Amino acid sequence: MTVTTEIIAIGNELLIGDVQDTNTHWLCQRITGLGGMVLRATLVRDDPQVIGEVLLQAVQRGTQVIFTTGGLGPTADDLTLFAMATALGRPLEEHPEALRMVQETYTRLAQAGYVSHAELTPERRKMAILPAGAQPLYNPVGAAPGVLLRQGDTTIITLPGVPAELQGIFEQSLTPILRELYGQGYYAERVLIVDCGDESALAPAVDAVQRGHPEVYVKSRAKAYGPGVRLKITLSARGDSKEEVEGRLSMALEELRGRLEALHIPIVQIS
Amino acid sequence: MTVTTEIIAIGNELLIGDVQDTNTHWLCQRITGLGGMVLRATLVRDDPQVIGEVLLQAVQRGTQVIFTTGGLGPTADDLTLFAMATALGRPLEEHPEALRMVQETYTRLAQAGYVSHAELTPERRKMAILPAGAQPLYNPVGAAPGVLLRQGDTTIITLPGVPAELQGIFEQSLTPILRELYGQGYYAERVLIVDCGDESALAPAVDAVQRGHPEVYVKSRAKAYGPGVRLKITLSARGDSKEEVEGRLSMALEELRGRLEALHIPIVQIS
Repeated sequence: MTVTTEIIAIGNELLIGDVQDTNTHWLCQRITGLGGMVLRATLVRDDPQVIGEVLLQAVQRGTQVIFTTGGLGPTADDLTLFAMATALGRPLEEHPEALRMVQETYTRLAQAGYVSHAELTPERRKMAILPAGAQPLYNPVGAAPGVLLRQGDTTIITLPGVPAELQGIFEQSLTPILRELYGQGYYAERVLIVDCGDESALAPAVDAVQRGHPEVYVKSRAKAYGPGVRLKITLSARGDSKEEVEGRLSMALEELRGRLEALHIPIVQIS
Repeated sequence: MTVTTEIIAIGNELLIGDVQDTNTHWLCQRITGLGGMVLRATLVRDDPQVIGEVLLQAVQRGTQVIFTTGGLGPTADDLTLFAMATALGRPLEEHPEALRMVQETYTRLAQAGYVSHAELTPERRKMAILPAGAQPLYNPVGAAPGVLLRQGDTTIITLPGVPAELQGIFEQSLTPILRELYGQGYYAERVLIVDCGDESALAPAVDAVQRGHPEVYVKSRAKAYGPGVRLKITLSARGDSKEEVEGRLSMALEELRGRLEALHIPIVQIS
C-alpha cells in the first residue's frame, strides 16, 4: 500500500514571490523515492488560522504523513507550532529535550564566536515550546528542532524552512522514522526521449498505453514546437516490490515502443 | 482593497518531484507587483475530482481571482477543463474562437515545418473544448489557448503548464484583464541587509516594528549561523496609492533603523 503524503509549506515570502519554494520539490523527490505518494502540497501565509485549517483538513482526509515546512524560527511570525497546537487542541509546553537541543546549539555557536552569547533568551526558548505529545527532531544545522507528532493514524513532521536545516533533519534525524513510515515501498521510472516536436501526434500512443496499463503512470511533456525539439515521456510505477514494479514498467514500455514505431516516431534515448 | 488571489498548479509531475513548479513563484511575483495578494497556492495531481474540489473551495472562500496552471494539453491526462466544467456544473462545448486559434497555430507550425500537417485531429480539437461561458485567451507560444471564466464574483484564469506559454499568455493576452481585475493597487518593499548572523538577536526589533506597524509586513530571513553571515529584513506594504504605501514603509523603516542601532546591529545595505 502506497503511503499517502501531503506537504504544507508556510511563509508569506513564498506567496509574495520573494522566495521560490524549493523545499516542496526536494521533499517530493525524496518521498517518491521512498515509495510514498504526495497527493497535494499547499503553500500558505503566516496565518495561524489558515495553517491550522489546512493541517486539520489533511488529517481529516486520512493522509498518513504530513510534512510542514517553515515557521519554526525565533520571531513572532514563526507561528507553525502555535497554529498546530490550536488546531489539534493540544497545549503548548516547553519540552525539556528540545530545550536541551536549543541550549546545546547556542553553546556551540557561542564557543565558535558565531553568536555573542549562549544565554536562553525568550526568542531562543520559543523554539523549544512544542504541542503536548510532540517529539523534537535534532537539527544538525540550525537552532530550531524539527517536530514529530502523531495524531490518530497521521504522522505530522514539522521542519524548518531554511533548506539546509530541513535537509539536515530529514537526512540525519528522520531515517529510522521514515523507514518505519514508508516501509518497503518501491518506485521506479523509465524516461524516453523521442524525436518529435508535436505532442498532439504522440497523444494517441501515450493515451493507449495509459489505458492499457492503469497501474503505470504515463506522461509526455511538451516543451515547445519546432524542428529538432524532442519530447520526454515518463513511465513510472510504485508497488510493494521491485519485481512487481519493474515487471509492470517493462510491459508498458514494450507496448509504447510498438506504438511509437507504428507512428514512425523514433526513440532517441531510454534511461 | 487588495484583490485576493489563489493559484492551483496541476500535474502529477510536480508532486512526483520530476519537475520543480516555477510557475507559482513567477505568478506570485507578478500578482504582488500588480498590488494583488496571493493567499494560497495548491499543487494537485491530475485527478479531476481533487482539481474540482480545490477549485470549488477557492470559489466558496470568495477568492476574487484564481489562476490554474497545467493540464491544458492534447493528452488524456490533461483534465483541467473537464474538472472545472464538472465542478462548476457547466457543459463542455467546442468554442469557435478557440478552435480558430488552435487551427491558426497548427497552420503556422505546419507551414514552418514544425509539425507534419495542420489537420485538426481529435487531440488538437480537444484544446478548443471549453466550459460553457468561457473565453479563450490567445497563446502566442503554443497551441492550447488559455481560458478565462467568470463564476459569480470570481474570475478564473486557466493557463498552460509550460512556462513560456503561461508567461506568453499572461504578458500578451491578459494585460487589459489584469488591469481591470487588480486596478490601481500598489505594492512596494524595502530590503535591508544587516551584519548579524543570529536571527534570535534580531527578533525583538523585528517583532516590535511589526507590532507598531501592522499595515507593513516585516520579515527577517535566516540563512545560517556564522561569522560574516548577513541577514535580510524585508519591509513590504500594499495599498491604494503610492503615497500611502511609501509613507507607511518610511515610518516603519525609521523605527527599525533606531531599534537596530540600539542593538548595535549595523545595516550594510538598504534597497
